[in-house]
Parts: sequence; C-alpha cells; structure tokens
Amino acid sequence: MNIRFYNARILNRDFEILEGELHVKGNRISYIGPQKRQDDLQWESWDREINAERNLLIPGFKNAHTHSAMTFLRSYADDLPLQEWLNKQVFPMEAKLVREDIYHLSKLAILEYLTSGMTANFDMYICPEEMAKAAADCGFRTVLAAPLNDFTSDIRAVEEEYLKFKEYDPLVSYILAFHAEYTTGRKRLEEVARLAEKYKAPVFSHNSETYQEVQQCVARNGATPTAFLDRLGIYEHGGGGYHCVYMSDEDLDIFQRKGLYAVTNPGSNTKLASGIAPVKRMLDMGIRMAIGTDGPASNNCLDMFREMFLVTGLAKLREQDASAVGAKEVLKMAVSGGAHAMGLIECDCLAEGKLADLVMIDLHRPNMQPENNLVKNLVYSGSKENVKLTMVNGKILYENGRFFVGTDPEEIYARANEIMGRCR
Amino acid sequence: MNIRFYNARILNRDFEILEGELHVKGNRISYIGPQKRQDDLQWESWDREINAERNLLIPGFKNAHTHSAMTFLRSYADDLPLQEWLNKQVFPMEAKLVREDIYHLSKLAILEYLTSGMTANFDMYICPEEMAKAAADCGFRTVLAAPLNDFTSDIRAVEEEYLKFKEYDPLVSYILAFHAEYTTGRKRLEEVARLAEKYKAPVFSHNSETYQEVQQCVARNGATPTAFLDRLGIYEHGGGGYHCVYMSDEDLDIFQRKGLYAVTNPGSNTKLASGIAPVKRMLDMGIRMAIGTDGPASNNCLDMFREMFLVTGLAKLREQDASAVGAKEVLKMAVSGGAHAMGLIECDCLAEGKLADLVMIDLHRPNMQPENNLVKNLVYSGSKENVKLTMVNGKILYENGRFFVGTDPEEIYARANEIMGRCR
Repeated sequence: MNIRFYNARILNRDFEILEGELHVKGNRISYIGPQKRQDDLQWESWDREINAERNLLIPGFKNAHTHSAMTFLRSYADDLPLQEWLNKQVFPMEAKLVREDIYHLSKLAILEYLTSGMTANFDMYICPEEMAKAAADCGFRTVLAAPLNDFTSDIRAVEEEYLKFKEYDPLVSYILAFHAEYTTGRKRLEEVARLAEKYKAPVFSHNSETYQEVQQCVARNGATPTAFLDRLGIYEHGGGGYHCVYMSDEDLDIFQRKGLYAVTNPGSNTKLASGIAPVKRMLDMGIRMAIGTDGPASNNCLDMFREMFLVTGLAKLREQDASAVGAKEVLKMAVSGGAHAMGLIECDCLAEGKLADLVMIDLHRPNMQPENNLVKNLVYSGSKENVKLTMVNGKILYENGRFFVGTDPEEIYARANEIMGRCR
Repeated sequence: MNIRFYNARILNRDFEILEGELHVKGNRISYIGPQKRQDDLQWESWDREINAERNLLIPGFKNAHTHSAMTFLRSYADDLPLQEWLNKQVFPMEAKLVREDIYHLSKLAILEYLTSGMTANFDMYICPEEMAKAAADCGFRTVLAAPLNDFTSDIRAVEEEYLKFKEYDPLVSYILAFHAEYTTGRKRLEEVARLAEKYKAPVFSHNSETYQEVQQCVARNGATPTAFLDRLGIYEHGGGGYHCVYMSDEDLDIFQRKGLYAVTNPGSNTKLASGIAPVKRMLDMGIRMAIGTDGPASNNCLDMFREMFLVTGLAKLREQDASAVGAKEVLKMAVSGGAHAMGLIECDCLAEGKLADLVMIDLHRPNMQPENNLVKNLVYSGSKENVKLTMVNGKILYENGRFFVGTDPEEIYARANEIMGRCR
C-alpha cells in the first residue's frame, strides 16, 4: 500500500514538529517534508491520500514490558501485593490455561495496544509462539522474551526458540530473557550467560521490582540482583531490567557502564504498591530508559498515556520537585527508548527509510487545546481518545475507533469471557 | 425529551449492577428496572429509544474542584512548584484576560468534562458569571465557588452573588467560598464566617495543599489552616477543603466531627509535586470525600478516569499496601461523594425521581474486557474512550465523540488559541 498523509504536523527525528506531508510506500516511510505541489505528485499513485487536518503524526509508542495474555485476569486479581498476587491469584489461574487461550488473550491485548497508539510490545509470557502467531495474524509487531525460570522450559528450548523466531515472521523478533533472579537458580543463570556469550546477545529480566526481592537476593547471594547477575556475566552484551524500582549506587553504575536499559512500569508499581523508580536519577546519569505497561492484571490498563503521565508525575513526587523529568524526555522514552531497548532501531523515529510504525494524534479534541505546546499536551493531557489512527509496518490497523486486524473484536471479547468462565 | 435506554446494564443506588432499562422524562429519571415488554410500553411515546447494547449506565462523574477557564494555560505553565507557578506564570497571564475570555475558556473545559463523563463541576474562578453563562448555554451543570481573597472582590459582592445565583438558572448553583487562608486575611475570614452563619451555609476553600502552606499558617496563626478556620467559625454549617494533602490529627478530627468534605486532587498534587493526600486514613475515619481534577493548568488533563486511578494508586503507594482504597470506594467518591459535596443531592445516583445526569460507558472496547468486574474495570482500566454518551439534565450533550452544546467545538478551539496568542 502507498499512503500519503498531507496537511500534517510531524514529530521529526529530533522530536521537533514540522508541517508538511509523510509518504508510506510498502512498509517504509518514503518521504517526510514540506507540502508537495500537485505537479510534483502527478506521477505518484496512491492507495489512499489522507488529509491529516493538521493533526500530529508521531512514531508509534513501544510497550517495552508486558505480559499480553494476562488480559484474562484484568479486574479479577486485584488489591494484593506482588508475591501474594502471584502465588494466590496469578499462578493457579495460569495453570488452567491451554495453549490456544494464550493466542486469543494476546489478541485482546493487541487491540488495546492499538487504541493507545502502541505499535510494538516486548512480551514475556509462556508459550511465546502464541503471541507470535497473534501478532503475525493481526499485523502487529512483537518482540518476544521467554520467561525462563526453574519451573518451566530449559536452556535448550530457549536456544531453539532464539533460532526459530529469527526466521519466523518479519513482525516477530526474540530477545534472550529469564523471568527473574528470584525464580531462576544460579546454575540456570550461568547457562543464560553462556548463551548470551555464544550469540553476543543482550539479556532482559524482571529486576529489583520490590524491596523484598532485593533484600532476599542480597541474603541469598551477597549482592543485589543487578550486581549478582552482572558478576555471572549476564550483561556482557547488554540487555536490561524491567521495573528497576530499588537500585543501589552500584546497580546504577552497572546500568550506566554497560549501557543497559531500565524499563520503568509506573502503573503496575503503583497498583501493586511496589514503589517509585528513581527515574530522574537514572536519566541524569544517562542510563537508557524505556516505558512498559506491565501486564493487564497488574496495571490494569494498557495505556501509554497513563504511563507517560505517571513517569513524570511520580518522579516529581519522589523528588519533591515539579520540574523533574520533562515531557520531551518522557516522550522519547516511550518512543525511541523503547525501540532501542527492543532492538527495533528501524522503528525509533519518523524518518525516510524507517519502518512505517506511526500514530495520528487527533488534535481536534478539547484536551489538546489550545496548542501551547503539543509535546506537553501529549504527555500531560493526552489520552486514548486522541489516537485517530495506528499504523504498523505500513498497514492501518486502527482508525476512528475501528480495528483492521482480520478478526471481529466482538469475537475476541467473547473468547476472553469464555476462557475466564472456564478458568474461574 | 423522553428517552428510553433499553438492553442496558445500570449501576443502581447501591452501586450494584442490574440489567434492564432506564427511562428519562424531561430532566428526570422516570424508571429503572427490568426490561419492559413491548405491550407495557404501547402508551409511551419516545423522542429516542437507545439500544444500550448491554453497555453500562452510570451516574455522571462530579468534578468537585476545578478552575475551568484556566484551559488557556494548559501546557504553557508547567514544571514549577505551586507558589512559583502561581506567581510567575499564572497570575501575570490571568491579569491579561478580559471577562469574555473566561466565558469561552470555560466552554473549552466543559467540552473536555463531557468527554470524560463529568456532568457537573465545582468551579472556583474569577468572574463566576462567565462560567454560569457558559454552563447555561451548553446545558452543563455548574456549582460556583467565588475565590474571595484580599486582592479581589469583597464580602458584599460575595453576598450579592450568593443571592443572585440562587435564582440564575436551574443548572447553576453557588456555594460560599474563599480562595485560601494564605491569600485571605483574618478580618475577611471573619466576614465569611458571619455570612455562613447568616445563611446557614457551608464554606469551601483550598486547604493544606502544600507542606509550606501549613507551616506558614502555623507560624502566622499558631494553628493549621483547618484548626484556624474552624476556630473562626467558618465550618459551623459544614463545607470542606480542596486538596487536604497535609492534615494533622486535629484537622482530621475536625473534618470528621463537622462532616466536612475533603476534595482530593491527585493529578494536580502529583504534577506540582505537592504530595499525596492521606485518602485511606480519611476514608477509614468516615470523612466524606470527593474528587476534583483541579484546573487544566496544573493537571493538565480534565479526566476523571485518570483521577480515579490516581486516588487508589497513590493511596496504595503511600500506605505501601496494594489493598488500600478499593475501586468501589473510589467510584463512590467520584459520583455520590462529589454530588453531596456540591449540594447536588438530586444527581448523586441513578434512581427514579433523580435528575438525569448520566453516562453510558462503552463496554465493547478492549480495556473493558473481559467483564470480570465492571466497577474495577471502570476505575483501574477505564478511559475517555469508554464514554459513549454523556447526558446532563435529561439532554444528551455528547455522543459517539460529537458535542451537542450549541457551538461548534472548532470555534471554541480557535477562540482559545486566539486568546493565548493575545496574552502571550
């Protein structure tokens, strides 16, 4: 498909706004620049020409940490601290899922990502092939991170997955991962380090999400999770951690030196009362950062607008400083930070040659007016109501509230309710 | 207009969900109950029959503290602490407004309230008649609270307003108020107390929003704002405070004993780094509570979904307890708590005879699925995208993204930008 957006405002690679048009040819951006004259376009043929009505085109948000299929537990398991929530509510319910359920539940999450302008997710869940299928079938971009731990899977299966998903589908990629230090013993972590070395690959995991987790790791290993994992050689080729709420000076130093990504999940950390991550300090140190929603059972909303407000808002509260963590920094985290963490360097900004993963933000809504500062409007007052169109890999998957993912949303909703009826 | 909603789910006065239909005759709810048979309806005539498609009807949210016309400063004055923000950004810009600007800027806020399912606002701003006009012209419900202080207005003007707005329009009411202890001297506060006594009237003001405010009041008056105001006789007939972030044991005791309303504003308190209100403790003590967005310059979003998530989320963080402040309590604060604080007892729930201020929540959206618990879905994952219809006083003012307020929204946006262009 060749698609022309004209009469648009465009967030360019420097996160500044220019006026003009953006062209998509196939799955890539072929032009960004001033409005074209009709004469200059006479030899072009378009499948669609979209008058953006001076709306704002931005790169798609990247959801850099989530567990998509956990949609089934939304509003079921709530109001419990992390460990109790995992052991009493989540694990027993997950044990009742069959493989196919994960496919349908992941699709439900994909619909919600699209409503919030997210064009890719970094997904950690059992049976990653189901997420891969759901993404490929919907046309959504996904980066898989298998939750290796002592109770599921083994390192050979992880290596097989790693090789298999390299070739699976252009929309699917795979990054080495394990669930967390507290669920994965030293022997297995050493196997992960060897695999990372073999493939020169980055490694991600949950890391320092709660105070107890860090304390217990120190008691067990004489070091914080970050320091312990670093000593095992996990981070020799980069990677990062999800959450990063309780970080020691040494931890921050390791993240900085090794170029690791701290993926912050403020909605989940708030709802589970885990704490507030030191986002300002990490940014000041130049630590690379991205934003994730975490899963829909712990958040419970898959909404990058909520997360962006929380990233800056909670930093302001934590630092007791209303100037902490400005809007542009937050937007960069949600877009290019996420893309880099997820290895999606071809989707990190709107520029010619980049993959066409983008969102049209409706500025003709009261929460976007007046137009004093569009970036601040996005971060401080933006909402899902402003997502007019979401495009992934050159295809429009969501427009004016309607989905174009090959399945009727009502069928997906019915499936989710049916699965929950069975598991309850 | 006589309007019939059928095939609906309805949040009843006990905040439980029943299935059936809801009828509106004129500006009141005339029936809530099981689905009617066609035979039973043959003598009824409807202006509209709306198939709710099993969507959820809820009472409108009440925005119990805001400064509507501050829309013009959205994303203009950001990232500063409260006092600096007020003195360097807000006050100099406000001085440039003319009376008519406030009318148009208030209309912009009304549009945004409607997108978030808010059916009434408790508005504190200069020239309250402009907000009153805007509300009456749009069909929106407003409760005015004039910001009396040492620099504007005087007590006679307040009394005149108090009497005038009693008779102004059925959609408009007025509650005695002053801006804050730190802007209003003792003499004037004593005048307010006398006026409250004369009319047996409740009194509201900003109260204990920041730590500094409380410390300075203690230094000035030997008492916290709440205790000082109580001793002056301000609260003899009830009332309450906006914000209530820093509350001493004595303050909480006064609020409890006098039945005062604590109106919490978590979005604003977060963005201005003011702090986290002790919501759990206030609820545990049975203190009456409501929720406000505060003004669009300090929040910057006028969105009750954001506020509801923050009320529970920040309480969980503050208490380090994921079970603190459940979803149903939060929803009650946003609906009936607000209505009672604002004297709108006829809009506090969906019941026969009550005024028809209601919202249809679209459940056919991914963030509302599966339907494990609709109240939790609303509070933890609800968003403006779920507001399918907003009705005030029996009239549909917003439906499927479109406004029915007698003015083209584009005209209102243009005005807001024009005003800002002039003031800058």
